[in-house]
Amino acid sequence: MNNKAFQALSYGVYIVSTWNEGTPAGCTANCAAQITATPATVMVSINKNNFTHDCIRKCGYFSLTVLAETSDPAIIGTFGFRTGKDYDKFAHVQWQVRDKLPVLSDGCAYVCCKVIDSMDTATHTVFLGEVIGADTLRTDPPMTYAYYHTVIKGKTAKNAPTYIAEQPEPKAKYVCKICGYVYDGETPFEQLPDDWKCPLCGAPKSMFEKR
Amino acid sequence: MNNKAFQALSYGVYIVSTWNEGTPAGCTANCAAQITATPATVMVSINKNNFTHDCIRKCGYFSLTVLAETSDPAIIGTFGFRTGKDYDKFAHVQWQVRDKLPVLSDGCAYVCCKVIDSMDTATHTVFLGEVIGADTLRTDPPMTYAYYHTVIKGKTAKNAPTYIAEQPEPKAKYVCKICGYVYDGETPFEQLPDDWKCPLCGAPKSMFEKR
Repeated sequence: MNNKAFQALSYGVYIVSTWNEGTPAGCTANCAAQITATPATVMVSINKNNFTHDCIRKCGYFSLTVLAETSDPAIIGTFGFRTGKDYDKFAHVQWQVRDKLPVLSDGCAYVCCKVIDSMDTATHTVFLGEVIGADTLRTDPPMTYAYYHTVIKGKTAKNAPTYIAEQPEPKAKYVCKICGYVYDGETPFEQLPDDWKCPLCGAPKSMFEKR
Repeated sequence: MNNKAFQALSYGVYIVSTWNEGTPAGCTANCAAQITATPATVMVSINKNNFTHDCIRKCGYFSLTVLAETSDPAIIGTFGFRTGKDYDKFAHVQWQVRDKLPVLSDGCAYVCCKVIDSMDTATHTVFLGEVIGADTLRTDPPMTYAYYHTVIKGKTAKNAPTYIAEQPEPKAKYVCKICGYVYDGETPFEQLPDDWKCPLCGAPKSMFEKR
């Protein structure tokens, strides 16, 4: 089996949100899709270890914010490489309530769903939601997972189904310990200002390690 | 609910294949995704009205050929807008057997799966498959659904979850009655040679209607 074959599958980049007893909870996801047109249903696949997973189970509703190519990439780090158990992700983003669910403002569309079924797998739950509301937020092109990897140079979280343990780079690189972002700017890493932050997750310079 | 929000979700373009009592069967799909990494599992969503749907049920195995941007777009029409009940789709393409399953040669990767679970929805079945084999076929970029719509100018089949009944165009256009391809070449449609064929599904000129 050649794992590289899986990298040929195409995805978007989404923030899946729900309520945790009155406060918003959410995580980054790449696996979401419309399953039926009538009634409109949408599925999302969420790792069972994610805090958001249990919140969706309890709440019974979720929203999907579709990120745009122009969305702030730091959102992906904030929602994909930290846990909502002890970190208030929503304090770092603009968000609003649409169809009674938290939706991020910095996306190009959102879909709100009521969970009507789910499929259990080894590490993830596939939630099937009947759409209760959906709208576009702006007309910028949606961010694809390929765009995230090739243009933003983002990494894959260990909880993602598409995660493949990576080989260490042969050349020394500076890597964010929070989100795995690899610095490859023109300025040598050592010469970056002390208040420089990881463009993906906002972690300080001290959270980078040389590899 | 604004249906345009659903168009912000990103997909690839795939041919899902299986065996129908010893002969290959398959259809075009846009909804496929890796669900878990260990063990590797992949899901596909197939309309229950598709001939391929019942063949997967009976066979218990399916393959996914990932189309590339450079794949012949006629494959999408052949596999997406005709039924395998009375039409030999595989007679029109190069294919091979990989991991005991039919795989199209004109793709960039393939994944072969054994069905281990399924989720029933109003119109589609979500099949979950454990991967039994996967490999890349060539390094060309995978075709995204957005590429299919914007560059190849393809249409959505009525059995697809993403299908939205379209408004008639205000200007007269020539539309393929088989696959919905809209001719917009520089040469006036009436002046095309008699042996001109639909670039998407291969239907003859006579199958186009003025709208």
